[in-house]
Amino acid sequence: MNDVITTLTNRKSDRSFTDEYIPNDILDTIIEAGHKAPTSKNGQHVSVIVVREPSRRAKLAEYAGNQPWVAKAPAFLVIVYDMQKIKLACEATGKTMELQNCVEGALLGGVDCGITLAAMQTAANSLGLGTVPIGGIRNNPQEVIDFLGLPPYTFAMMGLCLGYVKNPSLIRPRLPMSTFRHDENYNLEPLQKAVAAYNEELVAFWASHGRTDGKSWSETIGPSYSCNERPKIRPTFTKQGMTFQD
Amino acid sequence: MNDVITTLTNRKSDRSFTDEYIPNDILDTIIEAGHKAPTSKNGQHVSVIVVREPSRRAKLAEYAGNQPWVAKAPAFLVIVYDMQKIKLACEATGKTMELQNCVEGALLGGVDCGITLAAMQTAANSLGLGTVPIGGIRNNPQEVIDFLGLPPYTFAMMGLCLGYVKNPSLIRPRLPMSTFRHDENYNLEPLQKAVAAYNEELVAFWASHGRTDGKSWSETIGPSYSCNERPKIRPTFTKQGMTFQD
Repeated sequence: MNDVITTLTNRKSDRSFTDEYIPNDILDTIIEAGHKAPTSKNGQHVSVIVVREPSRRAKLAEYAGNQPWVAKAPAFLVIVYDMQKIKLACEATGKTMELQNCVEGALLGGVDCGITLAAMQTAANSLGLGTVPIGGIRNNPQEVIDFLGLPPYTFAMMGLCLGYVKNPSLIRPRLPMSTFRHDENYNLEPLQKAVAAYNEELVAFWASHGRTDGKSWSETIGPSYSCNERPKIRPTFTKQGMTFQD
Repeated sequence: MNDVITTLTNRKSDRSFTDEYIPNDILDTIIEAGHKAPTSKNGQHVSVIVVREPSRRAKLAEYAGNQPWVAKAPAFLVIVYDMQKIKLACEATGKTMELQNCVEGALLGGVDCGITLAAMQTAANSLGLGTVPIGGIRNNPQEVIDFLGLPPYTFAMMGLCLGYVKNPSLIRPRLPMSTFRHDENYNLEPLQKAVAAYNEELVAFWASHGRTDGKSWSETIGPSYSCNERPKIRPTFTKQGMTFQD
């Protein structure tokens, strides 16, 4: 339809990065796209930390649960929920920030970091770079905070690997559109059947690409979502001054 | 640099919509972009509800705190955090979903809804439509849930107005890049001075466009962030089966 739609609908995560350096102007353009992304209530409560130094990427790869592509990608962007900005903005008119104690504050952080990540990912893809978002830095949130020198009222939400791609990955099938798009009212009816069919479809998809160890959707979702996979987040938030309780 | 970068860096919220109908194929393309957006752990825990019916948009405008553009925009998309899908996926392998009780679950919801919103907004902008994200539907979350028929383990995170634009809005200045981009380590130093300068810059910006009532950044941020502006969210989450406590 147009280049923007093509970029968005062909998006996928790529992990096989070459060592090719990302020119500064390309990186600047990607970050500019993040800087211009929408932000809730004009809060602008996002910061991005560019990590290029190889030994530092290796350390973050370890914190992210040993994800080698974090070390391999020539640039790793850390997207930070940054309420420090809000704290200072409140203080400039004699107010005390309170939203870090409300669940709304956690939602704002997730939403705005997600929006910023998406803008930078789309920009990077359009410039010929491969990308993979990394939620794994939430596995060891305090270590990441200390490593990046993050002040109170901030939290490293996720990362984004950037690099030129050696072996492009496949676009995996998704749950059908009938489970994503609803008109006027939510329609629960297609979902139950869709999950069962999608479980089979994913196994068949991997098999058709020579991978007999390919798991169904439920087999990957179950272990991640049936427990608290990242128990260190809650105490780290508390230490950063954010309870998100009310 | 390219059409994608131009679309991303010229983004702004527009609220002056015409009545022009959005053709079905345009809307389908926008939603397809959301469906293909990245999702944490392949969770695919987002759904989108398309609201076109004028009286229903009027009702949602009211729930969003009387925002007339929600009623005026010919299409309003509600972006739903949809853990119902995860619940069924877990059950298909005999597991019980637990992540709705962890703060990680709230972050995943915010992040994935934000990513989906950004993809659809970028797609819409590239197709000549104006957009404005609406967090205000979290003002009255239970009413929105009932109105849209949302099942347990779901939550209406935000909306997105779509429409053709009558009077394009201005791009407001942002906090400077030095407060957004950090290299290798977070740098707190520029922030304090930047907030004061930005407060003055915004007032001057509005004045230069004939608006003498234009507020500084701190004057808009303070009232929103120094209290729990959306206290109904927490009890609504509890009712939907999501505590996000651990």
